[in-house]
Amino acid sequence: MVEHRKPIPVHEAVARVINKAKPLGTETVPLAESYGRILAEPVAASHAVPPFDRSPYDGFAIRSTDSVGASGDHRVKFAIVDYIGAGAVSKAVLGPNEAVRIMTGAQLPEGADAVVMLEQTAELENGFTIRKPFKALENLSLKGEDVQEGEEVVPAGSLIHPGTIAVLATFGYAEVRVAKRPVVGVLSTGTELLDVSEPLVPGKIRNSNGPMIAAQLARMGIDCKMYGLSVDHLEDSLKAVQRAAAETDCLITTGGVSVGDFDFLPAIYERLGAQVLFNKVAMRPGSVTTVAVADGKYLFGLSGNPSACFTGFELFVRPALLTMMGAMKIYLPHTRAVLDEDFAKANPFTRFIRASYDGATVRPAGFNKSNAVSSIARGNALIVLPGGTRGFKAGDQVDVLLLGSEEGTAEWKL
Amino acid sequence: MVEHRKPIPVHEAVARVINKAKPLGTETVPLAESYGRILAEPVAASHAVPPFDRSPYDGFAIRSTDSVGASGDHRVKFAIVDYIGAGAVSKAVLGPNEAVRIMTGAQLPEGADAVVMLEQTAELENGFTIRKPFKALENLSLKGEDVQEGEEVVPAGSLIHPGTIAVLATFGYAEVRVAKRPVVGVLSTGTELLDVSEPLVPGKIRNSNGPMIAAQLARMGIDCKMYGLSVDHLEDSLKAVQRAAAETDCLITTGGVSVGDFDFLPAIYERLGAQVLFNKVAMRPGSVTTVAVADGKYLFGLSGNPSACFTGFELFVRPALLTMMGAMKIYLPHTRAVLDEDFAKANPFTRFIRASYDGATVRPAGFNKSNAVSSIARGNALIVLPGGTRGFKAGDQVDVLLLGSEEGTAEWKL
Repeated sequence: MVEHRKPIPVHEAVARVINKAKPLGTETVPLAESYGRILAEPVAASHAVPPFDRSPYDGFAIRSTDSVGASGDHRVKFAIVDYIGAGAVSKAVLGPNEAVRIMTGAQLPEGADAVVMLEQTAELENGFTIRKPFKALENLSLKGEDVQEGEEVVPAGSLIHPGTIAVLATFGYAEVRVAKRPVVGVLSTGTELLDVSEPLVPGKIRNSNGPMIAAQLARMGIDCKMYGLSVDHLEDSLKAVQRAAAETDCLITTGGVSVGDFDFLPAIYERLGAQVLFNKVAMRPGSVTTVAVADGKYLFGLSGNPSACFTGFELFVRPALLTMMGAMKIYLPHTRAVLDEDFAKANPFTRFIRASYDGATVRPAGFNKSNAVSSIARGNALIVLPGGTRGFKAGDQVDVLLLGSEEGTAEWKL
Repeated sequence: MVEHRKPIPVHEAVARVINKAKPLGTETVPLAESYGRILAEPVAASHAVPPFDRSPYDGFAIRSTDSVGASGDHRVKFAIVDYIGAGAVSKAVLGPNEAVRIMTGAQLPEGADAVVMLEQTAELENGFTIRKPFKALENLSLKGEDVQEGEEVVPAGSLIHPGTIAVLATFGYAEVRVAKRPVVGVLSTGTELLDVSEPLVPGKIRNSNGPMIAAQLARMGIDCKMYGLSVDHLEDSLKAVQRAAAETDCLITTGGVSVGDFDFLPAIYERLGAQVLFNKVAMRPGSVTTVAVADGKYLFGLSGNPSACFTGFELFVRPALLTMMGAMKIYLPHTRAVLDEDFAKANPFTRFIRASYDGATVRPAGFNKSNAVSSIARGNALIVLPGGTRGFKAGDQVDVLLLGSEEGTAEWKL
């Protein structure tokens, strides 16, 4: 009567999911719309940065040899022969004790090899004096000191963040080749579910998983199609899943994956001929999380319990979608932090606790059951306690996965 | 000839900026569009969660008194009198040794005070036996155990993230009252600047700051109006600034804030009658960062150097915009990490170094000058070294501010 399922470790479940990812292909978008996308090609330097020797200050370009011997008692005098604003190029070729007035960012004139800062001079009519010698290359930004021409500045598979945009702009990428984004379907099962706009009635609750997953996808810049609420009847559910799977690159269902009388998803996977990658993970919450693949598409069967659903998305769906987009840093960022209060419960399986992390300490974000919803709202991290442990004390170091970070990490560290 | 400016500490500069923030007002958006917005009102629980006593498992609802004395040698027998799916409500009132078949999430029938899990039973025709006694409230999710009716679950000023969406959905918020978002103008000054689509010519560079800032704003979900490139002439620049300021809630300029011959912004602030909050900050890069207020609107004068510009945005613009939106957690998340390589330079001012942080260690993300652009692309954090220090060694603990996090922290910790 009760189906027996063998739980697999979290890291193995993650690996099984990732291995099934199929790339979505690439497309070109304008630079101004590329924030948050995954780079499909490396950013290569089309020129050196800076592209020419330039002045980092407002001042005077000189020949350092002319400054030899300058001192407070023996000020050396220069005549100003030209004036270069940023963006302009001087035609002057410096002769002995000649200088060119130069603005920040302007290209060094021919013959010059140092810059005297404005505040290092005493003004004369049509010239100035200095009281110290300058070394060759002093106060210069040299061509290529930041980036060499041809250098790979950002590898393919990186998230395009504001710093990436700055280099793309620098190198003239008015358009950027990026990974296509998947279209993800979300189908919430459960006869107890009301829509958010419906009044509460006895025995029912509003569907929070659907909107939550839509926001988890939005956080990744990914759109979803909501398939509303499916009733708990096998044939209706099968049709709903088939339709949704046909219209999307990946389908997430919530609920119906357990072993109850109304848990139709195992039967649906069978009817679809889906390959079930696992249907039991050694984790709490969300041990019933199931991932299957049919016709090369993921079918993520997340728990109907909000905390379990949330965690299943972050652990499995997120890295799978990122892998489909060719991203390198697919896992939630990991750190270690000091537990701020005792956690006495036993952890037969790896336990993921919605938590508040403040950069040093971490504490559970409230009520800790798989059906809890408040702690998801209050948390910004997941505490991870290894299976087979119990009795963590305030002051213990624990593993933490950070939520809501723009880019994650390339390695699964747990 | 060279204007003398008195630098103020970073924390004071931040405080001066924040103090000038004016709220933008609120608006109502559909729940499905509320991700990333700032809550204008607290989320209050319109009902308890769970809203009724319910079963967390598939099993049988019983009266615990009937299980007294059950053991392997003395199994106690129950008759099944009804069957409740999730979302349904049973009319049954349990009598002695009666049970109701109950699904996960379903409301407990009258008279029942415990749930026997399916796997804790031996099946009979129309009934089952158990081999252990059950305590009152055993295997139950009690009404209100997660949230009490009327409780404030999420305070106003919080970022709406996927967990917030889950509670909003739970409590029937089909629409959400959120802070309006500012419209931000971006105006890049500098005769040396080319547009991203223009070919490189001698003496010029492409404008990377404008697109970068647009992406820093996009990361906050904020739109911007780009005012393209203004030439370095006072009257033209004044008109461009006036027009941009009139069309936006806040104007960011890049370049032109220093003391060079082409740095018109100080003169523009004067002509506008703007109150200059500061024009020199004891920080590197970006010491010339200037913030002024005219007609109640911010004028952010960021450095034209990319790294300085980037840092100035994250330190000053970001918390100011978040404060305008009524957000509580306005500062970049702070942590401490182990420096992964020596950093020998002296730090006359507080130094912000673009850096790569991996959850434990942190290292400079490459070439470290204010005009560097590659390190912005490669970094995900800022190392902060206090002014008046020098000679940090690999292994030293240093302050780190994290970039690209969905929500920050309410306190400035440096």
